[in-house]
Amino acid sequence: MGGDFGPPVVVEAAALALDRLGGRDIRFLLHGDGARIEAELARRPAARAACEVRHTDLVIASDEKPAVALRRGKGSSLWNAVEAVKAGDAQAAVSAGNTGALMAISKLILRMAAGLDRPAIVASWPTMRGVTAVLDVGANVVSDAEQLVEFAIMGEAFYCAVHGDAADCRPSVGLLNVGSEDVKGHEEVREAHRLLREAGLELDYHGFVEGDDIAKGTVDVVVTDGFSGNIALKTAEGVARFFAVALRETLTSTPMAKAGALVASGALRKMRTRLDPSSVNGGPLLGLNGVVVKSHGGAEAKAFANAIKVAADLAASDYAAHIGRNMERLTAALREPGPAAENGA
Amino acid sequence: MGGDFGPPVVVEAAALALDRLGGRDIRFLLHGDGARIEAELARRPAARAACEVRHTDLVIASDEKPAVALRRGKGSSLWNAVEAVKAGDAQAAVSAGNTGALMAISKLILRMAAGLDRPAIVASWPTMRGVTAVLDVGANVVSDAEQLVEFAIMGEAFYCAVHGDAADCRPSVGLLNVGSEDVKGHEEVREAHRLLREAGLELDYHGFVEGDDIAKGTVDVVVTDGFSGNIALKTAEGVARFFAVALRETLTSTPMAKAGALVASGALRKMRTRLDPSSVNGGPLLGLNGVVVKSHGGAEAKAFANAIKVAADLAASDYAAHIGRNMERLTAALREPGPAAENGA
Repeated sequence: MGGDFGPPVVVEAAALALDRLGGRDIRFLLHGDGARIEAELARRPAARAACEVRHTDLVIASDEKPAVALRRGKGSSLWNAVEAVKAGDAQAAVSAGNTGALMAISKLILRMAAGLDRPAIVASWPTMRGVTAVLDVGANVVSDAEQLVEFAIMGEAFYCAVHGDAADCRPSVGLLNVGSEDVKGHEEVREAHRLLREAGLELDYHGFVEGDDIAKGTVDVVVTDGFSGNIALKTAEGVARFFAVALRETLTSTPMAKAGALVASGALRKMRTRLDPSSVNGGPLLGLNGVVVKSHGGAEAKAFANAIKVAADLAASDYAAHIGRNMERLTAALREPGPAAENGA
Repeated sequence: MGGDFGPPVVVEAAALALDRLGGRDIRFLLHGDGARIEAELARRPAARAACEVRHTDLVIASDEKPAVALRRGKGSSLWNAVEAVKAGDAQAAVSAGNTGALMAISKLILRMAAGLDRPAIVASWPTMRGVTAVLDVGANVVSDAEQLVEFAIMGEAFYCAVHGDAADCRPSVGLLNVGSEDVKGHEEVREAHRLLREAGLELDYHGFVEGDDIAKGTVDVVVTDGFSGNIALKTAEGVARFFAVALRETLTSTPMAKAGALVASGALRKMRTRLDPSSVNGGPLLGLNGVVVKSHGGAEAKAFANAIKVAADLAASDYAAHIGRNMERLTAALREPGPAAENGA
């Protein structure tokens, strides 16, 4: 029921995902207004067999406060989707609904996976070299050094599960800062830098990166606190939109420009696909006992289908165990007075 | 001597600025290697009369640590340029040199203007509606609520001096956050929000804005801490560069695309000018007793000339007095137990 469009987009996306992920045995539980969902399914008989509708009248509004959603949201479509993961009826939940409510309800129902302190939302960006995962982009407003290290561990496992070659996955991880030298940045980011180098994690830590390294694709995973990450993500979206608008205005500004755009239209369409943020839609809430993926509220079916693919990839991967192994290493490093602790501030 | 190019670009920029600011009686003190500067001036006789060369052999390297620059930098070209402002020989200093060294030396020589706690670097961004000033973009790594309010005061005065109509200037000011509701964000940003609404400043405070509001041009001045601001600025630069590279690749990818680009070339050139960050080059160090402007190290003459224009605009404005008036209001609001203090956390 979530997002700007509700059932029409979600059902079309399910049908698209079935096509794209045909080799895997994907099935859907569709939570929400039964009559509206059935009406959409009736128009897509090929998808019908893979879908089970679970009716509920209750919907969490997109502007509902998370605390209110927690108190009154039980039995809503969003709540039931997460509950189905907890019950083992589903291996993942995908929602285009209220992000704050999804986060609060998922934390309450699924709880944090062993050892992890806070969840993180990860975003996948198109870059010059492919895709870079950035986290946290808004689950938290402050993060201490240990939480930043946990984000690195979660982001690395996410990258392998969704963007990597499962067999030999070794993504590079960078920590977002205002410069590359060890002395740069505030205390939390410098302490996280030290831990990532010294805690003996199975993780290819590259060191500090700066804002322009995201679009460059300098590393595969960029780690930052949820405040800076959210601002970076939205700033980038704003710049990309400004560029797209300026390009459209430019190519319709004069008869000559229009003619040129027509001649070059094939190549321009290809560029739009390459830069299209929706091609990498799907921001998982990492760190929970279960897979929950947030789709953009404004996502069309193609983009929502990509969020479904991210959920299916995560559910089929060993990403929880991958995280668990590095969390054991981190816990050991923090407990034992080894070189990491001795060199501490 | 600073930046990637040194005297050739600086002298050419001085000549350009004399052309563009012909109506104003601009004169230059050029600090650095006398022989190299004179050689450049010899090629530009029109500029020669407005320039005085102040020779020094000492140059601060672009990778010198600020603390080292402070200890050993006395008598360097950068030091002498700032010292000339203190002495009243110059009304402003412009440098494309080491940012950290420029900041440290400027603070030491000029000191903070009355009442202000920390300097800020302001950047001017091209946006859908014109230009937006963003600060701090890197002078600080942490900022408390009062410092954020001081940035708002400095940014507003800067906007009027450089981008506004002097006569009736009323720029809108937004505080960068991860959402627009009062409860969003961390403690510092929420307390700054409260102060900006309640401290009785002469300032058009719009409220919270998000990252995508920068490129939209929702407000004229965007206030944030130096960590998030630096990350936002560099992230945006990275996205803009990615877009420019992708567009160039696209328009040379096929014979059809090349033909289209040729036909549309006039319009595309206009777009590049509109989006060109160098058209708004020049990031002043605000908050000091004197005008110091940082140019991008990679700036060509046209961009460096723009930094000179920013310095000239600031020096000719009443921006210091403008800041002083709002600082008096802020100090009064913080001292007296008025509504602002009573509603405090």
